[in-house]
Amino acid sequence: MTTKGERTREKILVEARLVFKRKGFGATTINDLLNAAGTTKGNLYFHFADKEAVGLEVLRREQQSFYRFLDQALAGKSPAVGLDNFFRKALEKQSQQGFVGGCLFGNTALETSDTAPVFAGLVQEVFAEWMRKLEQKIASAQVDEQIRTDISAGALAELVVTTIEGGIMQSRLQKSETPLKRSLETLRRVLELKIMTHIEI
Amino acid sequence: MTTKGERTREKILVEARLVFKRKGFGATTINDLLNAAGTTKGNLYFHFADKEAVGLEVLRREQQSFYRFLDQALAGKSPAVGLDNFFRKALEKQSQQGFVGGCLFGNTALETSDTAPVFAGLVQEVFAEWMRKLEQKIASAQVDEQIRTDISAGALAELVVTTIEGGIMQSRLQKSETPLKRSLETLRRVLELKIMTHIEI
Repeated sequence: MTTKGERTREKILVEARLVFKRKGFGATTINDLLNAAGTTKGNLYFHFADKEAVGLEVLRREQQSFYRFLDQALAGKSPAVGLDNFFRKALEKQSQQGFVGGCLFGNTALETSDTAPVFAGLVQEVFAEWMRKLEQKIASAQVDEQIRTDISAGALAELVVTTIEGGIMQSRLQKSETPLKRSLETLRRVLELKIMTHIEI
Repeated sequence: MTTKGERTREKILVEARLVFKRKGFGATTINDLLNAAGTTKGNLYFHFADKEAVGLEVLRREQQSFYRFLDQALAGKSPAVGLDNFFRKALEKQSQQGFVGGCLFGNTALETSDTAPVFAGLVQEVFAEWMRKLEQKIASAQVDEQIRTDISAGALAELVVTTIEGGIMQSRLQKSETPLKRSLETLRRVLELKIMTHIEI
C-alpha cells in the first residue's frame, strides 16, 4: 500500500525531472518545484533537505531507468542487430519527447560539472557504463565481422556516445529530428555496420 | 580614449562570460556578476537592463571571437591541411581552459534552448555558420581526394560538429583531455583525412 506521503514524494520527483530537463537545474527554483507538483513547502522539505537533494534523487532514478533502456535497446538476435536496434531506439526516445528536455545526463554534465561534484560523479558513472555496454556489443559484432574491425571497440563506443550527445544537442536546439537522425545515419556508415536482412520463422 | 563607464561595461562582460561558463546561466545571480566584476548594482543596471541582456551581449561577443578562431584555425596551404589544423586547434583551445567552462554555445544550447528563444536563435546561427565553413573546407578536400568522398561534405561537417561538442562534454565532465582527444583521433580516421607531409622551403 502506498501512503499519502509516498505519493507526494513520487509526484515531486516525477514533476521535478520534467522541470529540470526543460529549465535547467540552476534556473529551477523551489517554487517551480512546488507549482509543478502542486504541493507545499512543508511537504517538500519533509521529504528533501534542499533542491540539490531533489536533483540527486531525480538523477539516481534516471540512471536506473536509462540502464534498463540500454539493456532493452541493445538486445537483438546478434550483436549487430542489437546495435542497429540501439540506434533506432535512441532516436525514437528523443523524438517521443518532441526534442524538449534532451538528455538529463548531458544537460547536467554541461550545466553543473564545474560546480556540483556529486552530480558530476553520478553522470560520469552513467556515461562510463553506457560506453562499457556499447564496447562489449561492438567487440562481439567485430568478432562476427559485422562492423569495422580496424578501430578498437572502445574508441568506436566513445565515438557513438559523443555523436549521440552532440546530435541530441543540435536536435534540441533546432526542435527537429533531422540533426540527430542524420548524425546517426553518418555514424552507421562510418562504423560500417552490416545488417543481414533475412526471413525468420 | 576609453571612458570609465566603457571600462566598467567591458569588465562586467569579461567577468560575466567566465561566471556563465563555469556556473551556467540559470544559476548565476546578479550578485555573482557584481562580485566577479567588482562593481555596484547601480553601475551594472546603468549598462544592462537585466541578466538576460548581459548574457546576450556575452554571447554576441563570443560569436564574433569564435568566427575569428574558425577562420584562423581552418587556414592552411591546402584544404586538408586546414582541416588538420582545425582539429589540432580545437583540442588546444579546450586544453588551454583546463576543461573548465567548455563551449559557451553548447552550454547555452542545453541549458536554455527550451526557455530562452533569443539565446537559442543566436546559438543556432553560430552552429549553422560553423557547419557551413567546415562543409566548404571538406568539399574542397574532397575535390583534392584528401578526405573520403562517398559521404556528402554536409553530412561529414555535421558529424564533426556533433562529435566535438559531445567530446567537449566528456572532457569537461572528466576534467581530462583524453575523451576529446580520442574522439578527434577516431573522427580523423573515419573521415580518412590524408595529410601529405612534405618538405617546403
